[in-house]
Amino acid sequence: MAHPYAKPQRAPTTYNDKYVVLYDFGDADHNEAIDEFKTLLQDLEEAGLDTEVRPGYDQSLLVFVKAPRELLGHAVHKSRVKDWLYGIIPNHPGGDKNTVVKGDYEAEDILSVYHLVNWPKDLGGAGITPGIGKWERVKSIFPLHNTEVNQSLLRHLSKRIFLAPEDLDSIRDLLGSKVAFYFAFIQTYLLFLSIPATTGVIAWLWLPRYSLAYGILTSVWCAVFLEYWKITEVDLSLRWGVNNIQQVKVTRPQFKYDKSYVDKSGRTHYYFPKWKQISRQLLQIPFLLFAMIALGTAIVSVFAIEILISETYAGPYKFYLEYLPTILLAVSLPYITTALEDAATWMTDFENHRTADLHEMSLTQKVFVLNTCTNYLPIFLTAFIYIPFGDDVVPRLEAVLQKLLATVGQKFVHVPFRVDSDRLKNEVIALTVTGQLSSFFEENIMPLLKHKLSGWYRDYRESRSQEATLRSIVPDEPNEAEFLARCRNEATLPLYNVQDDISEIVLQFGYLALFSPVWPIIPIGFLINNWIELRSDFAKISIEHQRPAPVRSDGIGPWIYSLDALTWLGSISTAAIVHLFSADKFGNGSWAMLPVTVFISEHVLLLLRVLVRSILHQAGSERIREDRNQRYAHRVRHLEEMEATKRAGLGLSVAERERRKSILVTGNDVFWTKQVEDGASEAFGVDLIRQIKRGEDSSSREPKID
Amino acid sequence: MAHPYAKPQRAPTTYNDKYVVLYDFGDADHNEAIDEFKTLLQDLEEAGLDTEVRPGYDQSLLVFVKAPRELLGHAVHKSRVKDWLYGIIPNHPGGDKNTVVKGDYEAEDILSVYHLVNWPKDLGGAGITPGIGKWERVKSIFPLHNTEVNQSLLRHLSKRIFLAPEDLDSIRDLLGSKVAFYFAFIQTYLLFLSIPATTGVIAWLWLPRYSLAYGILTSVWCAVFLEYWKITEVDLSLRWGVNNIQQVKVTRPQFKYDKSYVDKSGRTHYYFPKWKQISRQLLQIPFLLFAMIALGTAIVSVFAIEILISETYAGPYKFYLEYLPTILLAVSLPYITTALEDAATWMTDFENHRTADLHEMSLTQKVFVLNTCTNYLPIFLTAFIYIPFGDDVVPRLEAVLQKLLATVGQKFVHVPFRVDSDRLKNEVIALTVTGQLSSFFEENIMPLLKHKLSGWYRDYRESRSQEATLRSIVPDEPNEAEFLARCRNEATLPLYNVQDDISEIVLQFGYLALFSPVWPIIPIGFLINNWIELRSDFAKISIEHQRPAPVRSDGIGPWIYSLDALTWLGSISTAAIVHLFSADKFGNGSWAMLPVTVFISEHVLLLLRVLVRSILHQAGSERIREDRNQRYAHRVRHLEEMEATKRAGLGLSVAERERRKSILVTGNDVFWTKQVEDGASEAFGVDLIRQIKRGEDSSSREPKID
Repeated sequence: MAHPYAKPQRAPTTYNDKYVVLYDFGDADHNEAIDEFKTLLQDLEEAGLDTEVRPGYDQSLLVFVKAPRELLGHAVHKSRVKDWLYGIIPNHPGGDKNTVVKGDYEAEDILSVYHLVNWPKDLGGAGITPGIGKWERVKSIFPLHNTEVNQSLLRHLSKRIFLAPEDLDSIRDLLGSKVAFYFAFIQTYLLFLSIPATTGVIAWLWLPRYSLAYGILTSVWCAVFLEYWKITEVDLSLRWGVNNIQQVKVTRPQFKYDKSYVDKSGRTHYYFPKWKQISRQLLQIPFLLFAMIALGTAIVSVFAIEILISETYAGPYKFYLEYLPTILLAVSLPYITTALEDAATWMTDFENHRTADLHEMSLTQKVFVLNTCTNYLPIFLTAFIYIPFGDDVVPRLEAVLQKLLATVGQKFVHVPFRVDSDRLKNEVIALTVTGQLSSFFEENIMPLLKHKLSGWYRDYRESRSQEATLRSIVPDEPNEAEFLARCRNEATLPLYNVQDDISEIVLQFGYLALFSPVWPIIPIGFLINNWIELRSDFAKISIEHQRPAPVRSDGIGPWIYSLDALTWLGSISTAAIVHLFSADKFGNGSWAMLPVTVFISEHVLLLLRVLVRSILHQAGSERIREDRNQRYAHRVRHLEEMEATKRAGLGLSVAERERRKSILVTGNDVFWTKQVEDGASEAFGVDLIRQIKRGEDSSSREPKID
Repeated sequence: MAHPYAKPQRAPTTYNDKYVVLYDFGDADHNEAIDEFKTLLQDLEEAGLDTEVRPGYDQSLLVFVKAPRELLGHAVHKSRVKDWLYGIIPNHPGGDKNTVVKGDYEAEDILSVYHLVNWPKDLGGAGITPGIGKWERVKSIFPLHNTEVNQSLLRHLSKRIFLAPEDLDSIRDLLGSKVAFYFAFIQTYLLFLSIPATTGVIAWLWLPRYSLAYGILTSVWCAVFLEYWKITEVDLSLRWGVNNIQQVKVTRPQFKYDKSYVDKSGRTHYYFPKWKQISRQLLQIPFLLFAMIALGTAIVSVFAIEILISETYAGPYKFYLEYLPTILLAVSLPYITTALEDAATWMTDFENHRTADLHEMSLTQKVFVLNTCTNYLPIFLTAFIYIPFGDDVVPRLEAVLQKLLATVGQKFVHVPFRVDSDRLKNEVIALTVTGQLSSFFEENIMPLLKHKLSGWYRDYRESRSQEATLRSIVPDEPNEAEFLARCRNEATLPLYNVQDDISEIVLQFGYLALFSPVWPIIPIGFLINNWIELRSDFAKISIEHQRPAPVRSDGIGPWIYSLDALTWLGSISTAAIVHLFSADKFGNGSWAMLPVTVFISEHVLLLLRVLVRSILHQAGSERIREDRNQRYAHRVRHLEEMEATKRAGLGLSVAERERRKSILVTGNDVFWTKQVEDGASEAFGVDLIRQIKRGEDSSSREPKID
């Protein structure tokens, strides 16, 4: 358990053996709260867990939970045996049903405590599911941060340029493989970014704008990166012993079943018909179509209004009106997005996924589709509508507007419209640079401010209030005060969702895949951003979020499909942009040949991907081979044990040979009795060969055999 | 072992326990032959096998091999244990290292005998590898046909319209899963064909030529069929307990390694560097490109000459000259194809695949690419060159030819060229109908004739010869004569290669996927052809081939990729044909929009495939679920055994509770000692809630706690 970055612990209070259950009875009445709380403690104790209760902020109680050494050690062992049974790790962990072990790293212990608290009773847990069903007032369950290791690891990460595999191991040891895979992903991406960053600067300095060479290079780079990451993912999942871990995942408590039945072995099955699940999932398609149309309409209208005002309007209040569309978008988009995200959440609940992983992924993917719309649509509009057709479309829009204004007696004062050919670049710059900056602010600064402010407000309220607080009833003991303050603080922090962070990187990858030739120095910006992002995300988890349960996963899940789709779309979009813009002309010939260019680019890149994939797949990795060898050696050992006594034939005793002969002779097939004596078959054949070959040599017939 | 279609066996001679090793010493001298033959028999006996030798045709010996009951039974059991170790079957077969079992079906026993004869000595076999290395004179090793079961099964199949899963089981029982998968494939395809057969007739009767609706329908049908087959394949592989069987496959004897080393556990590893394997496999790309260009050039030239002569030439000898190109093609193509196939064989050897499966597949795929060229290229030429550009291109070709002829003083008498717009249809009809007929002839009639003729010739030769034959030296015993005649006959039959048959069906599928709108009644022809093909192929294996070793496989292997590729190409080709031909005009507009049509069709079908795949994947099959449940139940049983004694917490003895408390108290973390007594945590929390809630109710402060 000795953590490479941990300093010797100072206090008698240890952090990493405590799991916290936050119970908030603010909205319950007296009896209800007491009953619920009693049940909570009973359930925890029934699962064999030790508890200590301390007052929290406002009307909340912090229930500290600890798994006794034996229970925890057995849970860890059982989890390993389960992994082995599911073929996730190649070898049985050893030991028997009474074995008690210590987790190899902090997260392994914490994960087992999490399971003891969270898993349903029939799996040996206490069944505490925060916010769900009868545990609606359990606001959260979380392990405490290991502040010292957090800090030393953060210091260590800040000093290194690139992370070594051991650094990723440290993150895994602390936060579990699901979070560690995010860091592995951003790290691999960061390393790969150095290539387009370099070529991007070269392209920016010396190559023409919308360079074909740079476009091809980036598309190829996307494909290679993606295939390389797929191998890395498998490699890491083997390193961490979590390959195919999704098989082990338990049913989430919200899963609804139509009926349950008991099979002949006495096991209860929960049945939810496949066709229902499929038809519900199919609803995603109309939903996403609708959502894309809704978002699309909003974005297109704002886009149109913005262009009309900023580029053709010359009337009064232009200065103010110019900001109108941005304000419109800023005001309306969050509403639309929130409404759609709510709908997506409802949809995902309705889809009724069996495991929490599947649920989370389905939701994240929906939100991601919405995000791609918001992020990429303005650029697509600029590239493929505004710039090529602006001269046609904008005056017409203007005419419509003028008519509209005329009906209300207004007049549209305008300047002649000319397409702003830099708009594409500006749009990309605006969306990437400001996007990165604002997301940094939203992720890191905002929550911190919000958290601080709400803390101040709570203190202020309490100091003015006449009512008793829990903490005033039972003041903290001096030696616990600092510790409890920390716990109360962590209890107010939000949950960490690693999908949001992955989503951000995938979105960034999308800019590169889709629009790289527009502004070739994007990658170097991304490189710098991500170098910081990696460290700041680690700091964010340590400071601004509750420590996540160290859940395991064997990669970044369905984001692979998103990356695949973006790479594919990229081969189309990049080709189209280069084709249309590098000539700086939009004649008919150019448009006519566009589908051909796109067709060629798309298919060449598809073939290339197949090629890269099969090469990398063949090459595999050292660890993949090692895992295969281990599994193989295990099997061979087993079979050799079977073989040991069983080399038949030679070395049989005389008695055994006679017995075998007698079996042949007494069998009902006389065929096998002709040459049953030792060497009879051989003698017969040799004699035949001899006669023929002698006959051949002397050309005379000697038909004789005994 | 009771075969559902077997009649009670008549003779004392059983067939299905005999494996035949055919040793031909015709080209060896006296001593060499005797030494080799002795080694052969010694190796067989060392592996524990019983042998009987009988004279064969010419200078060959039939070595009959039988595995004694114990050896065979143990080999079968060991193979099952191995399957379990590799996770191919969910449950351990039971028994221990001395267990002897009977195969569940004929092929299981025969497969084990095959392994005993064929596998290398360190795996417990005799290491007899026909035609390879020192066993060059072992012409073949094969099991004997079970004629009665063959015949009754063939009768049964001929009576049924569609095969039931049990019929496929019967084929598997007799010939092993690799062959059975071919029949399952053609059967599934046959069932699916009924849809395009019906719609094809409708389209032919009532829809316009090159109908869009029919094209879309067929493309969608291709995608659905393919995805359905993928699921069926998994389902069947679970039914037959062979899912992922390729993991079990042993190294083929021709595999060359760069070096071998012994690892720390004493196991020998054979090392062939990955980079070598990959770079050798990459050579496939230039090879296939070259082969396609070579074939393409041949086909294009013949195509051009044929058009010139048949459609523009009006000079003398036209009648004879018209046949010239066909003869040219018929003469030259086999040479080219054979040369390329030889090259492909050499290439595949050079690629040095580890298992026989991989080798076979790599070779078959190469040959398939060549086949597609020969089969589809003429149609592509007709559709996309000849018909649209014929009026431009042909006169130019004619001019070139006239110049050429003028230099030798000849004159080209011609009629004005007019594109024959029916040529596309005729080309498709010629290639499909005559293709099916000629392949039926080549597969079924030709080999039979050839076999009969060579038999007659051998008899004739022997009757005229002065020399002794083996059979004249040792005349057959009367009760064995009939049996031995059969065995000698089977020994002269060729090997059966299931890949050839699959290739034929895949090629047929390709016609449907690529060119269906050209002549919409193709599918009904295919339907009838395949109904016969299925039965005639079974008859062909029974009569015209040595019984194949019942090798196992979990599907039709990489043919899936070929089908995938054809479906994909189909979405492009079908769209292009419908787009160009349905308008019956080849104006510029039509060509300009072609890429757009293709682009839309391709991507809509890709999306559709993703959709169909995910739906079918979700739906799975009953057997896939059952397999999962079985594996799950096995794990749960194991874990419950672990759990049995381990429900901690409740029900602890007083002594145990005291012990636990004392551990908490003596630990160095005082935090956990505060509420160590039973119910102390609960009492503390309840008291807190009570005070706050009472305070809330009465709005007065009662800060008291005990």
